[in-house]
Amino acid sequence: MAQPRTLALDAMGGDHGPEVVVPGAALSLERHPALSFIFFGDEARIAPVLAAHPTLAARARIVHTTQVVAMDEKPSQALRRGKGSSMWLALEAVKAGEAHAAVSAGNTGALMAMAKLILRPMKGIERPAIAALWPTVTAECIVLDVGANIGATTGQLAEFALMGAAMARALFHVERPTVGLLNVGVEEIKGAEEVKEAHTLLKQADLPLAYSGFIEGDEIGQGKVDVVVVEGFAGNIALKTAEGTARQIGQYLKDAMMRTWLSRLGALLARGGFRVLKEKMDPRRVNGGTFLGLNGIAVKSHGGTDALGFASAVDLGYEMAESGLLPRLAADLETFHGRLAAEQPASGEHRA
Amino acid sequence: MAQPRTLALDAMGGDHGPEVVVPGAALSLERHPALSFIFFGDEARIAPVLAAHPTLAARARIVHTTQVVAMDEKPSQALRRGKGSSMWLALEAVKAGEAHAAVSAGNTGALMAMAKLILRPMKGIERPAIAALWPTVTAECIVLDVGANIGATTGQLAEFALMGAAMARALFHVERPTVGLLNVGVEEIKGAEEVKEAHTLLKQADLPLAYSGFIEGDEIGQGKVDVVVVEGFAGNIALKTAEGTARQIGQYLKDAMMRTWLSRLGALLARGGFRVLKEKMDPRRVNGGTFLGLNGIAVKSHGGTDALGFASAVDLGYEMAESGLLPRLAADLETFHGRLAAEQPASGEHRA
Repeated sequence: MAQPRTLALDAMGGDHGPEVVVPGAALSLERHPALSFIFFGDEARIAPVLAAHPTLAARARIVHTTQVVAMDEKPSQALRRGKGSSMWLALEAVKAGEAHAAVSAGNTGALMAMAKLILRPMKGIERPAIAALWPTVTAECIVLDVGANIGATTGQLAEFALMGAAMARALFHVERPTVGLLNVGVEEIKGAEEVKEAHTLLKQADLPLAYSGFIEGDEIGQGKVDVVVVEGFAGNIALKTAEGTARQIGQYLKDAMMRTWLSRLGALLARGGFRVLKEKMDPRRVNGGTFLGLNGIAVKSHGGTDALGFASAVDLGYEMAESGLLPRLAADLETFHGRLAAEQPASGEHRA
Repeated sequence: MAQPRTLALDAMGGDHGPEVVVPGAALSLERHPALSFIFFGDEARIAPVLAAHPTLAARARIVHTTQVVAMDEKPSQALRRGKGSSMWLALEAVKAGEAHAAVSAGNTGALMAMAKLILRPMKGIERPAIAALWPTVTAECIVLDVGANIGATTGQLAEFALMGAAMARALFHVERPTVGLLNVGVEEIKGAEEVKEAHTLLKQADLPLAYSGFIEGDEIGQGKVDVVVVEGFAGNIALKTAEGTARQIGQYLKDAMMRTWLSRLGALLARGGFRVLKEKMDPRRVNGGTFLGLNGIAVKSHGGTDALGFASAVDLGYEMAESGLLPRLAADLETFHGRLAAEQPASGEHRA
């Protein structure tokens, strides 16, 4: 039987607050009955919504705070002024061991800054990453970093590979996840030295993953690998571009089906198929970016999502907590850094 | 009446050579009767295909060479060994003024290296860029750089803006094209200083374009701006990711329509709509990356395309040649660099 897991939810985060967070938690609880919840936020707003979900109410408690991080607050501001906010308290609950993961639909930059401050990066990790689930023609893959930082050194790219592999192991239940390094096609192009060096490092290093080499942007959605590693600027642009393209094609499709009465009739008859397509392309199905590289699990939901979307982020928090990936990842990172340190003098001489 | 324009075609480039290049040229000639062509490559292979297109044959000549740049040749190799190849000769024809633009479906890296060597960068341009046409919900936009270089300085990003605007003026017939700078959402993120500085520069500079500020990856396809500026690593990844996502959704759609006999029937009735959608999503419709920033026009077609796709690249070469954008761009660049130089001492003091 699944172990009981407690999630700390920032009830005030996102565009809708408790009206989305509470029903979202209720949906996820139906799928994962071992869950219990702590809602952080304004009790006067949370309690009435919670009362409408008695099963959830029996497995939840509210920690009251009126302080909220605004969606447009700068991370540095949020750090200064956000102590005691619903977001802050949710992360502190993870740190204190009261919750196994925190989920927030709030301000991404603020959440990242607070998570770094409260949960602290794992030993040897300078830069946590944000990992996104990416739907593929076969299933899903994990792409990281999708925007925690801009740029990444060779070592950081290798750490992303380890972190992504740990997450893939937890979510996809494969012991040696396949990992690809996102790159551009032309071989001799100047620049991106860190990507080339990370390629060499990942090829040679004896890591708990199956390194598949370079992959290109059009191969992400093909499901070629379990984990796609890229620095955060290009990763964020890739993610947003894919989302935009999906929306754009959805619009094309709608327009095309509305053109003539015959195509409208056809679309009506094929509505079962369109429903499947819509579900498949529904961004709420895989909602949630995970912060990796911290001593604790924090999941960021899209701010504008509804209960269905928020439930996906809660599911993700649950699966991450359930898998116990952090101790394993910590051990993998220690081994990796230990080896790197042992090799350093030799490679230093080599370069001099 | 349209002025006569001559295009230099690398008949041996791409996966299929003359079998695609010659019929592609014939298709484009139907649309642009003022065109004439020089085919560079193996006469024994070109002549028989050309003979099947008498209208084209009347407006074409062949310059024979048996030397060909292989699709997998490294750019440096191609430069050493490719003198006299079909690709090389096509570019030399542009330099010599015999042709108004060169089009090749050959090896991208080799074409870029040769184009730089033969056509030379325009005055003040260190780094030419590859610009791609990107379909949007409203029409098309131009995205650059999609992979000529990795990374870009503040000044280079501003040059990309000028080059993209010149291309947009030529293709979209707008006097002050709108230009956006591709960036990631979070405001306070560290890194990408050159993007932030380019933002300030473009906002303040009095350039022949309408600067729209930052845009994110999901906004490219919305047609928010005429020109999207980004350094080549992220730009290439964005382009490939969009292509991959479109293919992925096409696959989803096919699967969804094949599910039940009802959805199959519906899809059959709606086939007119699907045909429109397919045309809209057809990558051959907007095929061709343009090298910008050189003293001459060179267009790169996808290597694996067919005659229809190659014809789009020829169309693009024609429109670029027809517009006479190079002298105007040269003047814009000179003004820009002149102003920058005039401001340099002040800004230098400011920074010191």
